[in-house]
Amino acid sequence: METKEYLLAIEGELKRQVARLDEPRTKPFHDMLAYHMGWTGEGAGPAATGKRIRPLMLILTVAACDETNAANWLRATPAAAAVELVHNFSLVHDDIQDNSEKRRGRITTWKIVGAPMAINVGDALFVMSNQAIMDLSEHYPAEIVVQAATVLHNTCLDLTRGQFLDMSYEERSDLGVEDYWPMVAGKTAALLSACCHIGSILGCVDEGTQDAYRSFGHALGLAFQVQDDILGIWGDEAITGKSAASDLLEGKKSLPVLHGLSQGGKFAERWAKGPIQPDEVEEVANLLASEGAYEATYALSEQMTALALNNLREADPKGEAGEALFELAKKLLKREQ
Amino acid sequence: METKEYLLAIEGELKRQVARLDEPRTKPFHDMLAYHMGWTGEGAGPAATGKRIRPLMLILTVAACDETNAANWLRATPAAAAVELVHNFSLVHDDIQDNSEKRRGRITTWKIVGAPMAINVGDALFVMSNQAIMDLSEHYPAEIVVQAATVLHNTCLDLTRGQFLDMSYEERSDLGVEDYWPMVAGKTAALLSACCHIGSILGCVDEGTQDAYRSFGHALGLAFQVQDDILGIWGDEAITGKSAASDLLEGKKSLPVLHGLSQGGKFAERWAKGPIQPDEVEEVANLLASEGAYEATYALSEQMTALALNNLREADPKGEAGEALFELAKKLLKREQ
Repeated sequence: METKEYLLAIEGELKRQVARLDEPRTKPFHDMLAYHMGWTGEGAGPAATGKRIRPLMLILTVAACDETNAANWLRATPAAAAVELVHNFSLVHDDIQDNSEKRRGRITTWKIVGAPMAINVGDALFVMSNQAIMDLSEHYPAEIVVQAATVLHNTCLDLTRGQFLDMSYEERSDLGVEDYWPMVAGKTAALLSACCHIGSILGCVDEGTQDAYRSFGHALGLAFQVQDDILGIWGDEAITGKSAASDLLEGKKSLPVLHGLSQGGKFAERWAKGPIQPDEVEEVANLLASEGAYEATYALSEQMTALALNNLREADPKGEAGEALFELAKKLLKREQ
Repeated sequence: METKEYLLAIEGELKRQVARLDEPRTKPFHDMLAYHMGWTGEGAGPAATGKRIRPLMLILTVAACDETNAANWLRATPAAAAVELVHNFSLVHDDIQDNSEKRRGRITTWKIVGAPMAINVGDALFVMSNQAIMDLSEHYPAEIVVQAATVLHNTCLDLTRGQFLDMSYEERSDLGVEDYWPMVAGKTAALLSACCHIGSILGCVDEGTQDAYRSFGHALGLAFQVQDDILGIWGDEAITGKSAASDLLEGKKSLPVLHGLSQGGKFAERWAKGPIQPDEVEEVANLLASEGAYEATYALSEQMTALALNNLREADPKGEAGEALFELAKKLLKREQ
């Protein structure tokens, strides 16, 4: 299905939201946000904006809830903008926190404007997500707006929880596989879950169906993250854009690593000795696989994928948008792009 | 009037909001927020929490809107918590941005947990302010909640505008007195204005009265900021807790400095030569006063104070809470504490 119409509407709404700062005195501030959003500056364009997967999932969910009303999704675009603004706020702050110099192939915002100003850029994007979700009140009853906003805010607290765990895990050596899920639940699954949940609220379906959509987004997020972990160690550079095994070099406590550590074998022994060096990355990746980490992680990824698709079938999305939702989920999980 | 009952309710609601993170996995994260809020850690107590002026103004406004219903204000405590959480989120990020080592006499949060984690602490406080304002829906119709939340979110964007201007002014040498107001409008006046505006919305008064309360908070914030600028150069250390003239040492482009620069006299000449040194601070402060900056700034502070009190009289706050509101405004403007 053609999702171009949706993506155009999403991009238009995002620009309308960010334009709140496009006034004479705050124009340079607006330009910082526009750069991060991928609209202006060096390397601006589709590769710089990202795929807008989160707002697209929200809009497709709304559309798939009621195929009889073809323009039903149009009034939900402020919510789509809200989830994408939350995502981008978290990226801006994340890049400062991780000291990252590149994002989507471009220099990160904080490397250009400095960390103090970039903290404020992230804050402004976050504020705009709140303003965007309130803009729903132009077309929805206030009760629905409060419901959607509450889901969004609870999700944002999950994001800070995930971020806290992620940062605190860096210094811990006592972690097991069971510590993985609460961390990725906040990092990836929470926002995808919120997209589907909010979409179903705005699609005005019953609570059972809302639950199915919410669970679909959550499982999809977990499956996506587990796959990302596999690709980060044994993966295909052409697909991910980052070199395989780069997670090993960074010492990231991803699921395969946590599995390897729990085995207490040669991998755990090597890990305890200090940072993995570039010339041993392939060897260590093979060692980790030989201790069962690839197999175990792959099985979990398959399990989460099946769960996600089951949940989506239960939600029973309608029409072309429903088909597009299945396609998008499968594309995400197979990483065909 | 005794405001102790209000302050106890505010503190209780703040703790209830922040307790969202008080779970086994995120306990250390919760503790970081509790430290910043002044509840735990070295120096915890009333001096560390600050005076909770913003939530108190909100609650007093609600109570002063309807003296016939003595417990009217109780259901508004989540909104009071929301404005204080916004204030504290901005302090945590501000301290990182300004590289400040002390806040209310204690080591700043980022100096203890590091800047990356402190960014996340600020983000979590901000999220909780959004959750708190939504909690109003337990006792108010959804339309009122959306109205209050919209005011809060618009105010937060003003805060990021003010922060942007403040940071960008540091590097600019072309500023005039007219550049001062948009900056302080975001920095101080926006949130005080929001406290009174939201209080009047929750107090269910007509739009004209809401406007008067909103204008009162705005003028009060401006008057307070102008006074703070005076105290920062010629002020009384015993009152402000910071040494007089410290703003000159920091090179802060406060209102008196902007006035001095606009005169193009000896002060402007000295300023252009580089940072003011400790041994010349008194001399430069006297020079600035001799060029009319003290007089002009003091006149503006009197003007804003009169405007604030006029607006409050127009709002016509009722009963004991109304008297307390006048008292609080006068206390703030005379800095008797």
